[in-house]
Amino acid sequence: MHNTTNTDHDALISSIARTIKLAPDEIRIIQNLFKLKTFEKGSFFLREGEVCKQVGFIKKGIVRYYINNDGEEKTYGFNRENEFTCNYESVVPQTPSNQAIQVLEDSEIWVISNTGLQEFYSKIKEGERFGRIVIEHVFIQTLKDRNSFYTDSPQLRYEKFIWEHSDLQQRLSQYYIASFVGVKPQSLSRIRKRIALQ
Amino acid sequence: MHNTTNTDHDALISSIARTIKLAPDEIRIIQNLFKLKTFEKGSFFLREGEVCKQVGFIKKGIVRYYINNDGEEKTYGFNRENEFTCNYESVVPQTPSNQAIQVLEDSEIWVISNTGLQEFYSKIKEGERFGRIVIEHVFIQTLKDRNSFYTDSPQLRYEKFIWEHSDLQQRLSQYYIASFVGVKPQSLSRIRKRIALQ
Repeated sequence: MHNTTNTDHDALISSIARTIKLAPDEIRIIQNLFKLKTFEKGSFFLREGEVCKQVGFIKKGIVRYYINNDGEEKTYGFNRENEFTCNYESVVPQTPSNQAIQVLEDSEIWVISNTGLQEFYSKIKEGERFGRIVIEHVFIQTLKDRNSFYTDSPQLRYEKFIWEHSDLQQRLSQYYIASFVGVKPQSLSRIRKRIALQ
Repeated sequence: MHNTTNTDHDALISSIARTIKLAPDEIRIIQNLFKLKTFEKGSFFLREGEVCKQVGFIKKGIVRYYINNDGEEKTYGFNRENEFTCNYESVVPQTPSNQAIQVLEDSEIWVISNTGLQEFYSKIKEGERFGRIVIEHVFIQTLKDRNSFYTDSPQLRYEKFIWEHSDLQQRLSQYYIASFVGVKPQSLSRIRKRIALQ
């Protein structure tokens, strides 16, 4: 993980400006609060057991969320370019994370510290509004993901994966897709064949 | 469900003022936005399949959250006096609720409509901040409840119930406690005896 001097915050600023109005001086505050960090493929944005102290906005790359279930990795979901990443369950109460956020490609992530986030809320006029709206969306998506994780069949999970993440299909190894679907890689091939025959 | 003219918003105002600063004119706005409604025991704050269009603050009473699983009611959690109640999963995207919120005692609930809530966010200076902080807490609590629901043993769920809701034990029927624990009422008695012997 390295800091770089790249200052091309365009996608980040556009993403925030889609939800709230930003004055020019507020754009400068945001540029100062988010630092670009590079992560090597396989490294961690957040490790299991670690307290999450930052929120990321992915400039380039993919992350996956997983829990370690008695040695078996269970993948909850993914985030990719132009999406935020963090574990609210850890960052809000500042308790150790029960899940890991792993970087699946060499990635660049705009990172804001938890302290920076509080500054964002207080210094950006509609900062609190942005925080409220983002967490609402993350909340809804997380509940959907959890419900699916616990109640959907592997085949339905695979179909949802194709539906929601079709562009990730070529970028993710079979191992991670199978871990998301909740089966062994060989069973994933069987599900694929079954769907192809339908 | 009836509107009343009671204007004793004290607990509601205190609860909000614990999180954000409120000016006198803002208190008046809040008093106008929240209407007191009475609910009879057994009635619904939100029915399954209905779009949630309001948020409540319980002045008196208890509600439970449950889903109907092929005719079997599964209880996720409870809220009581001085707590907010709503289904974010339905109120935020304005989609039909997959769970019901049932009133378990004759209750009085301060109700704000979804439109009123947007007014709260825009007219109260720190309204967005309040919304952000409340949803953060609800988010964390919901994830804890869901994790427990899917992974904890009935005995552990009963122990957590006693721990978190000891004051509700006398107010709830065995049926609802058993439904929360995830067992039939007769199995709940066995769990109770086992714990008493420990």
